[in-house]
Amino acid sequence: MPISTPNFPKNPNFNAQHSPVGAFMSFTCGHAGSGGGIGVEIGKPAAQNLFVGVKQGGRRESGTLRCLPFLKSFTGTSAAANYDVEKAAAQAAADRSYDAYPADQIKREYGWATDRWVTPDFSFTIYTPFDPVPKPTEHDAMRQALLPAVLARLDVDNRDGKQTKTAVFAIDFGEAGTRLIGEHSTDGSLGFAWRRKMGVLGRLEGKTTGLGALQRWSVAEGLTDVNPIHALGNTAGLVVEVPPGEKRSLLIAIGVYLDGVVTTGLEGRYYYTRYYTGLEDVLTSALEEAPRLMARSETLDAELSGSGLSLDQQFMIAHATRSYYGSTQMLDVGGEPYWVVNEGEYCMMNTLDLTVDQAFWELKHNPWLVKNELDMFTRHYAYHDQVRAPGGAPRPGGISFVHDQGVNNNFSPRGRSSYELAKLTGCFSFMTMEELANWVLTATCYVAKTGDAEWLTKNRKTLAACAESLRARCDANGIMAFDSTLCDGGAEITTYDSLDESLGQARSNTYIAVKTWACWIGLKLLDQLAGGEGSIDGGANRAEAIAAALIKAAGRTGVLPAVMERDNPGFHSRILPVAESLVYPFYWLECLAARSVGGEARDSLVASLHGPFIDAVKRHTLALLNDSKRQNLFDDGGIKLSSTSNNSWMSKIAIFQYVCRTVLRLDEDPKIAALFTAADAAHTAWQTDGISGYWACSDQFINGEAKGSRYYPRIITAALFLEEKHALKLTQPAAAITTA
Amino acid sequence: MPISTPNFPKNPNFNAQHSPVGAFMSFTCGHAGSGGGIGVEIGKPAAQNLFVGVKQGGRRESGTLRCLPFLKSFTGTSAAANYDVEKAAAQAAADRSYDAYPADQIKREYGWATDRWVTPDFSFTIYTPFDPVPKPTEHDAMRQALLPAVLARLDVDNRDGKQTKTAVFAIDFGEAGTRLIGEHSTDGSLGFAWRRKMGVLGRLEGKTTGLGALQRWSVAEGLTDVNPIHALGNTAGLVVEVPPGEKRSLLIAIGVYLDGVVTTGLEGRYYYTRYYTGLEDVLTSALEEAPRLMARSETLDAELSGSGLSLDQQFMIAHATRSYYGSTQMLDVGGEPYWVVNEGEYCMMNTLDLTVDQAFWELKHNPWLVKNELDMFTRHYAYHDQVRAPGGAPRPGGISFVHDQGVNNNFSPRGRSSYELAKLTGCFSFMTMEELANWVLTATCYVAKTGDAEWLTKNRKTLAACAESLRARCDANGIMAFDSTLCDGGAEITTYDSLDESLGQARSNTYIAVKTWACWIGLKLLDQLAGGEGSIDGGANRAEAIAAALIKAAGRTGVLPAVMERDNPGFHSRILPVAESLVYPFYWLECLAARSVGGEARDSLVASLHGPFIDAVKRHTLALLNDSKRQNLFDDGGIKLSSTSNNSWMSKIAIFQYVCRTVLRLDEDPKIAALFTAADAAHTAWQTDGISGYWACSDQFINGEAKGSRYYPRIITAALFLEEKHALKLTQPAAAITTA
Repeated sequence: MPISTPNFPKNPNFNAQHSPVGAFMSFTCGHAGSGGGIGVEIGKPAAQNLFVGVKQGGRRESGTLRCLPFLKSFTGTSAAANYDVEKAAAQAAADRSYDAYPADQIKREYGWATDRWVTPDFSFTIYTPFDPVPKPTEHDAMRQALLPAVLARLDVDNRDGKQTKTAVFAIDFGEAGTRLIGEHSTDGSLGFAWRRKMGVLGRLEGKTTGLGALQRWSVAEGLTDVNPIHALGNTAGLVVEVPPGEKRSLLIAIGVYLDGVVTTGLEGRYYYTRYYTGLEDVLTSALEEAPRLMARSETLDAELSGSGLSLDQQFMIAHATRSYYGSTQMLDVGGEPYWVVNEGEYCMMNTLDLTVDQAFWELKHNPWLVKNELDMFTRHYAYHDQVRAPGGAPRPGGISFVHDQGVNNNFSPRGRSSYELAKLTGCFSFMTMEELANWVLTATCYVAKTGDAEWLTKNRKTLAACAESLRARCDANGIMAFDSTLCDGGAEITTYDSLDESLGQARSNTYIAVKTWACWIGLKLLDQLAGGEGSIDGGANRAEAIAAALIKAAGRTGVLPAVMERDNPGFHSRILPVAESLVYPFYWLECLAARSVGGEARDSLVASLHGPFIDAVKRHTLALLNDSKRQNLFDDGGIKLSSTSNNSWMSKIAIFQYVCRTVLRLDEDPKIAALFTAADAAHTAWQTDGISGYWACSDQFINGEAKGSRYYPRIITAALFLEEKHALKLTQPAAAITTA
Repeated sequence: MPISTPNFPKNPNFNAQHSPVGAFMSFTCGHAGSGGGIGVEIGKPAAQNLFVGVKQGGRRESGTLRCLPFLKSFTGTSAAANYDVEKAAAQAAADRSYDAYPADQIKREYGWATDRWVTPDFSFTIYTPFDPVPKPTEHDAMRQALLPAVLARLDVDNRDGKQTKTAVFAIDFGEAGTRLIGEHSTDGSLGFAWRRKMGVLGRLEGKTTGLGALQRWSVAEGLTDVNPIHALGNTAGLVVEVPPGEKRSLLIAIGVYLDGVVTTGLEGRYYYTRYYTGLEDVLTSALEEAPRLMARSETLDAELSGSGLSLDQQFMIAHATRSYYGSTQMLDVGGEPYWVVNEGEYCMMNTLDLTVDQAFWELKHNPWLVKNELDMFTRHYAYHDQVRAPGGAPRPGGISFVHDQGVNNNFSPRGRSSYELAKLTGCFSFMTMEELANWVLTATCYVAKTGDAEWLTKNRKTLAACAESLRARCDANGIMAFDSTLCDGGAEITTYDSLDESLGQARSNTYIAVKTWACWIGLKLLDQLAGGEGSIDGGANRAEAIAAALIKAAGRTGVLPAVMERDNPGFHSRILPVAESLVYPFYWLECLAARSVGGEARDSLVASLHGPFIDAVKRHTLALLNDSKRQNLFDDGGIKLSSTSNNSWMSKIAIFQYVCRTVLRLDEDPKIAALFTAADAAHTAWQTDGISGYWACSDQFINGEAKGSRYYPRIITAALFLEEKHALKLTQPAAAITTA
């Protein structure tokens, strides 16, 4: 076994979303007692019963199948009772032949692309390597990248054994539709499926015989009954006998195939249907690709484990990567690729306030997909509105973008989201200002990263309209002052939609203010990259005005109010995300450096990252982190984004930490470094402990428990940690920043 | 309201499968407290929450929505809690604004094609007319016949009211994927759907305005919230305000659309996809066809209610018709129609021991579909075997047919069923002999009904092989003596698979013996119709031998053992299905009479229905029915097919009753007539009372409770009751039959 996969030394009782790229599919398992299995187009773990286990003795011998704890329960009764109704009672007891390894006999290794459980009898490994998604023109590479399957491997080493062991990998699908596949293969591969939708194909490594199948209502029947296979059974599996003195490795492809149109509104098919003829093609290809998939997993594991990051940080990245890809969906809409990232448990499509945060990851791996996202927003999901001050008259607004493009495979009508509603001041209100900023920031990231001048030219008018729209929503000081009239008496909110005013209200919010500041830095950058003619920011850039307003608002205490309205409950809240948007100029600067772009563009960015405004944000942040009352920390040391709410978002904490360590270099203070290390440990426990462990990777935690935004893609922001080691070193201002 | 729909005077608390033809779809409702809704490709009621109700006051006014009892519970909590997690507690109480009418305020009318609930506030009606399925060449007629939707209607009469009433038809789909449709229609129609799969479209009769929609997590939110529509909500519905002094009729189309290949093994698409472009086309068409659908329903209702049958008999027919069509699936396989009847809750496809019983209905309505079934069995699902006596050596067997063609949309491999297993003597063993007989009998019924000489010529060799195979499985006396070697040590069973030996064991069974006798009568008939050359029955017809053996076995008591093996537990069982297969020569005779075919063929059939053998069966049957110990009756008067089992099958009881009343004319004895009347009342209660009411129409009852074969198509045999009034009158033998 590769040494690059770290043994996970903490609570291993958590689900992981083992996912290929773009198939909106996950083979989820890992959390004891809740099953799991192959989930397709659902924002939660599948509820199948998984059997991964070994029994002492041959297949037909009686004995207990000892399994990984992926069984929902041990009390299954035979569904045969529905057929042979008078004799049901006598059969009900037959199905109790399972047991689970106790926790102390299971070791879990959790790498970037390898998830392995080791028991005294076997090891079970799931490989989920990821690769850039190539352009559609690269047929073979695209076929590989979009393979809608994951690979697993069951290794049973009986070289020291005295008797045969029988290994089993089986799934009770729970719903009717199970069938066997591959019975006539010539290479000994064999498998099972559920209707046309999902399936498993196994092959013994280095052997063309010895793999058996079962299909019954229970695994026990399938092992010991005279008829191991009954087409009526919901449960199917693969069986290998391992004689004493030998070992066996079972390679297992786990995949899906949904053909035809799968969405409404905009009718889309899975892009993988261009490359694979059906489920069996997918599964066969996955087995054929097994050596490459395992090798690639090992490389990725080594990259992460050799990163120098702490185990907590590595865990967060490995966990988030799986969860991210489980939410991705590459569609073919009208013959063109259409990239969708679904919003975890909510299944909203391309939520723009996630897109912006996920762009750092996506631009590193698949820049063209960010362009695809930006273009689909301008093509289908932009709108124009009016705005008004509280109680004021309507006045011109401008362009913005919807919160999301639909939900549950139902694309929204043009220019509408599934989420936003009128007449509200909290959750489900419009995010017009925030999404406008998010599109601008994502666009700037894309251009900075790729230098795509053609795209910039094509979108110059849209960007100029965005600048105009930003101005229309703000006072002359650049701070948001006007809500969209779409709110119809309500008020705009931010991506922190279920938080109190401190981060929930968009107007006069300092988080939004700094994000707006970043937009103006970005618009100026784009102007410069496009020729420096002021055609984008319109010559009325608000960055300096915003900086001045915030410096003023920080006042003598150095702490910014969350909401700059004195009579607002958020005025007294202290929020860490004020620092978040410093990430943008820093990221752009890094992109320019990587592409060796200097000159005015570079100088402006450097300037934006130094000076009184940055000092003010640093002072504010330090004040909150060093607060003796620990108002921005939870009891367990986890980071509390707002002092007035127990609601905190992991994805946002990760960006915040990244800004603190790179832009602000706060961790040069050992006290802050220790605080972050302690926070990382707390955040790991947030993900693994209690009910959170069921939901795989989650974003929104109340007092450290996953209560919303579960099974979520956005935590991929944690991958920014990987960039810290080789990040640019800014020259920090000489002024000593005192801690509050 | 049409007077032809009878008020149902018994327990109205039962689900009905409201189903179109060939879509494997049902809009099921009627059983209190268990929900229901649109079920597609599932062998049970859907688990959606249905709201059909009225509230006093306008839409936005507070008040209780009083509903039909199709709600699963009244304790729904708002799913918004998953988004706005800190404020969840405050919202949880919002969703308790429903109530159900008490039973005494609901009247149910249950006609052949109309199911109506009348409350003090409204009536709700579901129309499920059925029509022959035309040939595929008749494009327009086929489009109508295969419309995958049912029509419903909600009538609110507020002409005597003092305030506005608000009527609602809504579904909480439970699973994520709800969306609104038809928002831009020009005729005022409006609806909702679940992804691409199922949906509802409503239109107010005679009005193009006034229909509203809701979509939220709860109906209460959708009625009273400032935002009646939120794309995230699982619950969607239609809303109509009815001002005082007015009335409104809401027409509701409820349909499905599954595009693409839906089966495996043999890849099939729904045939309706040839005629409809998608879900909205289906629903729009259903509304356009509303007048025809309602008129046709009224005609069918009138036909049944004017039939002269008792209300119990009418109920059984109306109930069975819906259940039958809910199991039907018209596929396009390789460009050809492929008719599948799924086996109720088990979802086995074209189970041949159901096909034979359902053929009476199918041949009346859609003879070409019976040919289709027969042909698909010979093309894909015939096989050849060897046979052996218990403990004996293998010997030549012959052709037979599989029990079924697959399960859950997964077609079985060629020549294999999903059901049959080796090494068994009970449930799940092979039915080789019974299915051979079933194919022969169905084929004879088809030829007798249609006179399709071309088909007969084309299948003459197959039929001759069947005759050869029948002989190979039987002793010279024509009684089955050899089990298929496929049983591999086990023994063949009959369609009564979960019964004891009395009807479970095929070998030496008197039910199978009489069925075999009928086969020989049929093969002789086909010989005669094909030219009378003995080319089919091979000149070695076993009908007389079987008759002689059975007369001998009846002995002095006149009662046939169930199994003619003295040491078999079934030897002492007394079974009523001995009489069942007399239906075949009688049916064939009627077919010939209807087509004015006389001569030798007719004379042979008449002869087969008179004489000592028929006397013996009559004597046996009377002995059992008049048994003073009532061993073949349940305590409630329901009919017990075997004296030694509490397991009884409604579909088979119906054929048995038909034979008794037509062939044997037993009900000329008022005592028997009264016994049957009492039995019919018991059988109605079997379907409606207790848990049976949830499962709509069921076949298999243990002590009057539906325990297996639920949600089943086969009870359509009850439609034979309709043929009794104009059935041929046979001259009964003069010999006085004494009652035992």
